[in-house]
Amino acid sequence: MAFSEAETAAMTQALQLARRGVRGANPLVGAVILAPSGEVLATGYHRGAGTPHAEAAALASAAAAGADVRGATMVNTLEPCNHTGRTGPCSQAILRSGIARVAYAAADTNDAAAGGAATLAAGGVDVEGGLRGDESRELNHRWAAAAAAHRPFVTVKTAQTLDGRTAAADGTSQWITSAEARSDAQGLRLRVDAIVAGTGTIRADDPQLTARNPDGSRTEKQPLRVVMGRTPVSSGARVRGTDGRFVQIPTHDPAVVLAELYGRGVRHLMVEGGGTVAGAFLRAGLADELLAYTAPALLGAGTTAFAGLGIASMAHIQRWRWDSAGGGAAVPVGPDLRLHLEPLPDFVNEPKD
Amino acid sequence: MAFSEAETAAMTQALQLARRGVRGANPLVGAVILAPSGEVLATGYHRGAGTPHAEAAALASAAAAGADVRGATMVNTLEPCNHTGRTGPCSQAILRSGIARVAYAAADTNDAAAGGAATLAAGGVDVEGGLRGDESRELNHRWAAAAAAHRPFVTVKTAQTLDGRTAAADGTSQWITSAEARSDAQGLRLRVDAIVAGTGTIRADDPQLTARNPDGSRTEKQPLRVVMGRTPVSSGARVRGTDGRFVQIPTHDPAVVLAELYGRGVRHLMVEGGGTVAGAFLRAGLADELLAYTAPALLGAGTTAFAGLGIASMAHIQRWRWDSAGGGAAVPVGPDLRLHLEPLPDFVNEPKD
Repeated sequence: MAFSEAETAAMTQALQLARRGVRGANPLVGAVILAPSGEVLATGYHRGAGTPHAEAAALASAAAAGADVRGATMVNTLEPCNHTGRTGPCSQAILRSGIARVAYAAADTNDAAAGGAATLAAGGVDVEGGLRGDESRELNHRWAAAAAAHRPFVTVKTAQTLDGRTAAADGTSQWITSAEARSDAQGLRLRVDAIVAGTGTIRADDPQLTARNPDGSRTEKQPLRVVMGRTPVSSGARVRGTDGRFVQIPTHDPAVVLAELYGRGVRHLMVEGGGTVAGAFLRAGLADELLAYTAPALLGAGTTAFAGLGIASMAHIQRWRWDSAGGGAAVPVGPDLRLHLEPLPDFVNEPKD
Repeated sequence: MAFSEAETAAMTQALQLARRGVRGANPLVGAVILAPSGEVLATGYHRGAGTPHAEAAALASAAAAGADVRGATMVNTLEPCNHTGRTGPCSQAILRSGIARVAYAAADTNDAAAGGAATLAAGGVDVEGGLRGDESRELNHRWAAAAAAHRPFVTVKTAQTLDGRTAAADGTSQWITSAEARSDAQGLRLRVDAIVAGTGTIRADDPQLTARNPDGSRTEKQPLRVVMGRTPVSSGARVRGTDGRFVQIPTHDPAVVLAELYGRGVRHLMVEGGGTVAGAFLRAGLADELLAYTAPALLGAGTTAFAGLGIASMAHIQRWRWDSAGGGAAVPVGPDLRLHLEPLPDFVNEPKD
């Protein structure tokens, strides 16, 4: 059968809901539950790794509102998962709920999660995929590319001036962005499985690379602290810590870092600095999103946020696009702006120079 | 007498309205007309040089709505002007309208325009100033500084990548920003009295520096085309044109340029390039707003938007602030963002190096 007008309209809403989530180890997903009349009974979206799936969020929202979803249709931007994560397979939850029909956009290409549609159909649910599938796939194009390559999703974070500087000519950099922006960036550390910095940043700034609460104490969950590069990290460097969650990977190749970390279970990596490391990931086409905390300030000289891109001419400029997911493309954070970008869907890295 | 609650609330609205206008030769001004009951009868704001003053806009809005303003109160962010501009003195228009009271924020410090409050009082209007005067003065702090120094208001425009590059390493720069962004920037040229570029930009890009309609034809009103620097502009350079509206000022000192242009009647100057000229104005503390058309793109190397700021250390970083006037601090223009900044109210230039 074909998709109804109500289902098509609900998919527009589901795609918008999906964008409220944050990018990372999991794809962005939105779900809308429609009564047989076409009325919206409940909505949900996936907020990010470690939180309920969109389907579970929508079902919970319906339950909280006392809405009867028996016989209802769930409109979902992604095929419901079939694997047991934190909340059990969504396919089973949908079967239990009495939902009669599922209209989804894109198939789940994740090996571990696929098969939800077949499970639902076997359970008697009317399942149909392909409603605006292109838009759903485009929404998560970098997540899908990372998953297909069996590598972590990579977020690059910078703290820079309007003119792209991360430190003044004499090397001083404290603080280009505000306390509010630095606190917001701390929130990112809570979301990722690992943080990587180069040996130069470790030597210059001696960062802890830990996730901390607003009061400065360490959060219970800590990302793996990764240093890439061959220069030995001094025995007293703070990044070493005492919890064993530190590793140095003696390479300058981002692909080697990603392979090593994927093998350790890392699904979301944040690149924190410096410009050489960030540039290496960008040059290799291995940066999936960019968060640039930008101060309304100018230095005119000094260290740049992205070094070694190997671009000599406009013909090879790296074109990205503003990304409205996870809060917006340009979000005020204290006196600064958090700019959010993702690669264009047709982004292809062409090493050059 | 004191200001009423309705007047205080109306001033909040007037200050917000004022921000809708564009910065330039005239200050940002908003006006709200209140009925004796406290009801808002009409509002207005000054859209920018060459358009009606806020008072005239509010009175026109009231007339269009058929509202009776006799006995009403006008709440205004700036003392109504007393001079004959395009629409005659606002003080006379207010007297004719039958408005009984004017509550304004800040006094008009412009010699030619001042005296409006006295004229109104002499005409029998109850006039009171000082309602949130600090906020109004802060809103126009750079305009007031330029007016007091008898120099043009200076807008610096850049077209740059996220990492602050205006050209690739080999000098190519066409096009970093989109056709939409370039068209938006053409709109700026319509608003200013003059455009300045350096001799290096003239040699490298051979720009026309003319204001053009979307179809490429020249607009009737043309800004003065100014080249600063000592290198002679070649006889075939397009900037020379044939309309006589071209001048070269053989100096590297922005203050000299501003003095010369003010003497020629220029009240709003746009700095279009390149980085050395933009940097010279910024370094001298003579840039009053910054419009950075920012492409979601990266070059990693090449020409920078601001050169020669003379800043060696974080202690001397230039701090500005995002400016929501004239459309917003971060406005999507095609695939790009137009970022808008103004110096902090306490911005003091400290030449250094």
